[in-house]
Amino acid sequence: MKNLHVAIAGATGAVGVEMIRTLEKRRFPVSRLTLLASSRSIGKRLLFHGEQIPVQELREDSFQDVDVALFSAGAGASKKFAPFAVQAGAVVVDNSSAFRMDGEVPLVIPEINGNDIRKNRGIVANPNCTTAIALMALHPLHKAFGVRRVFAASYQAVSGTGAQAIEELRTQVADTVAERPFSPKVYPHPIAFNVIPHVDVFLENGYTKEEMKMQNEGRRILHLPEFKASVTCVRVPVYRAHSVAINAEFERPVSIEEALEALRAAPGLKVVDDPANAQYPMPVNVAGRDDCEVGRVRLDCALENGLAFWVAGDQLLKGAALNAVQIAELL
Amino acid sequence: MKNLHVAIAGATGAVGVEMIRTLEKRRFPVSRLTLLASSRSIGKRLLFHGEQIPVQELREDSFQDVDVALFSAGAGASKKFAPFAVQAGAVVVDNSSAFRMDGEVPLVIPEINGNDIRKNRGIVANPNCTTAIALMALHPLHKAFGVRRVFAASYQAVSGTGAQAIEELRTQVADTVAERPFSPKVYPHPIAFNVIPHVDVFLENGYTKEEMKMQNEGRRILHLPEFKASVTCVRVPVYRAHSVAINAEFERPVSIEEALEALRAAPGLKVVDDPANAQYPMPVNVAGRDDCEVGRVRLDCALENGLAFWVAGDQLLKGAALNAVQIAELL
Repeated sequence: MKNLHVAIAGATGAVGVEMIRTLEKRRFPVSRLTLLASSRSIGKRLLFHGEQIPVQELREDSFQDVDVALFSAGAGASKKFAPFAVQAGAVVVDNSSAFRMDGEVPLVIPEINGNDIRKNRGIVANPNCTTAIALMALHPLHKAFGVRRVFAASYQAVSGTGAQAIEELRTQVADTVAERPFSPKVYPHPIAFNVIPHVDVFLENGYTKEEMKMQNEGRRILHLPEFKASVTCVRVPVYRAHSVAINAEFERPVSIEEALEALRAAPGLKVVDDPANAQYPMPVNVAGRDDCEVGRVRLDCALENGLAFWVAGDQLLKGAALNAVQIAELL
Repeated sequence: MKNLHVAIAGATGAVGVEMIRTLEKRRFPVSRLTLLASSRSIGKRLLFHGEQIPVQELREDSFQDVDVALFSAGAGASKKFAPFAVQAGAVVVDNSSAFRMDGEVPLVIPEINGNDIRKNRGIVANPNCTTAIALMALHPLHKAFGVRRVFAASYQAVSGTGAQAIEELRTQVADTVAERPFSPKVYPHPIAFNVIPHVDVFLENGYTKEEMKMQNEGRRILHLPEFKASVTCVRVPVYRAHSVAINAEFERPVSIEEALEALRAAPGLKVVDDPANAQYPMPVNVAGRDDCEVGRVRLDCALENGLAFWVAGDQLLKGAALNAVQIAELL
């Protein structure tokens, strides 16, 4: 594999920084790294393999000689600049929601539908973070039993919103400890010592956009146009790593033994399921880890062929940067 | 109504203190208040209507002349001492799990099955806090559409565990802000900036005892022996007030209009459902409030006759002290 010129659009954001770390950690064959961000970040320098790399402005002409462009600068920036990257000959891996539902753009979790990458016309989309983490556990169970629908509730960390939200939680907590008043800026309500059932914008049907992603993106990733997912997405005062409680209904009879076997065999997934010793997935344990964790696996008491389980994963890694770099590796 | 001699067993606990406040707030006709707790609390004094009342040791002979005994001292204490209170002629309202599944003991949420109180033989049980909060919203929908089963995930505050857990969260957060290391005591894992999918003890079937309460207690309270509830109970770093995400399947076709009408007419429940203005129930808003709140009501996209919704309530009040005092009022 020849060394590649990689560009990161949105390099200074929470995911962008993890993309740099992930390229390093996985020893991705980089001949040159171009860091791009909005004009506000010009002048910043970020470390890559010990080298200080200056951040440049993301522009239409930023992609000359770029082989792979990793985008994580929001859907607006992706829609505007990704076509220029493709035109310049780069392959774009886009972490935003801009192209996820575009039939021409493969939406890929390498462990699940890596083959879909072949159909790309210059852009491959990275799924929503909560969806990616949930599907890491749901897919092996789907292969074993055939999933029909899921009911899920999420516990989403503030880093999913970005660096400002991390700072908002930190400030609000410090203000609470010091008994100082504060007013929320990033979120519409306090996030310290609270939970907010509002992630992304509300749709006509009463769900948020985030909540419908598990069904919409799940159908594409699992190749299952009838898949149904009713989700409630909730922001919780956790810095890093999302968790999801899932009830899943399958076509065929399930057993705990077969379920655990399928989950244990799945790449990128670790089974942590020892309730007697208080071992189950938690944000504090998966933060900073590549693998997602699944546990609390039990026969669902309200479904005929059903399983209830609990998944946690670092949404900046498997939910974003890691998955993007894994896609780039397949390319 | 004549004035009554009221005893509170477990008066110094998080719920006990709220019981005193609730008796005051609702102007319960108290002629005398006896505060009982374990021997460790003897000598403490608690305020009731401006009067300092000394805490006495909870003993078998504590209930002479007591008309109503409110118990919130754990299931062990209830099993041991409630029979003596009954023998002394008191009616016991028990907040523990000791008698909830006892067919001879009515399990009551006054707004739902207040009439069941009549069948009591000296003891009335108060339901689990998460169950009580969930049923406050589920019952009106059940009356309208006939509930069959629910899938639920909880976001439970530390005060549900008690005063030590409140202190544990406070300490861990302060230690985190000051960058001091800490080791968990009350919970098996850190609760600050984490979520723990482990409330109460684990059962053979992989659910926790807490998780099965919604089905077991729900069947008794709703008079619905076939009711099914698959729940994941999760502790979150919130001081006060539980939240629950619910997907509910009904026998009859549902509509949002009828659902909101039923919820708005329900006593003890407030509909807060204005997503366009970021209004929905949250712990910060229901903490310290008697009413539970319901919102995020939407047609469930994965159920035929289904609704998804979100409930929040102060588990020390509706989930415990308030419900107990309401039962005492009916008695």
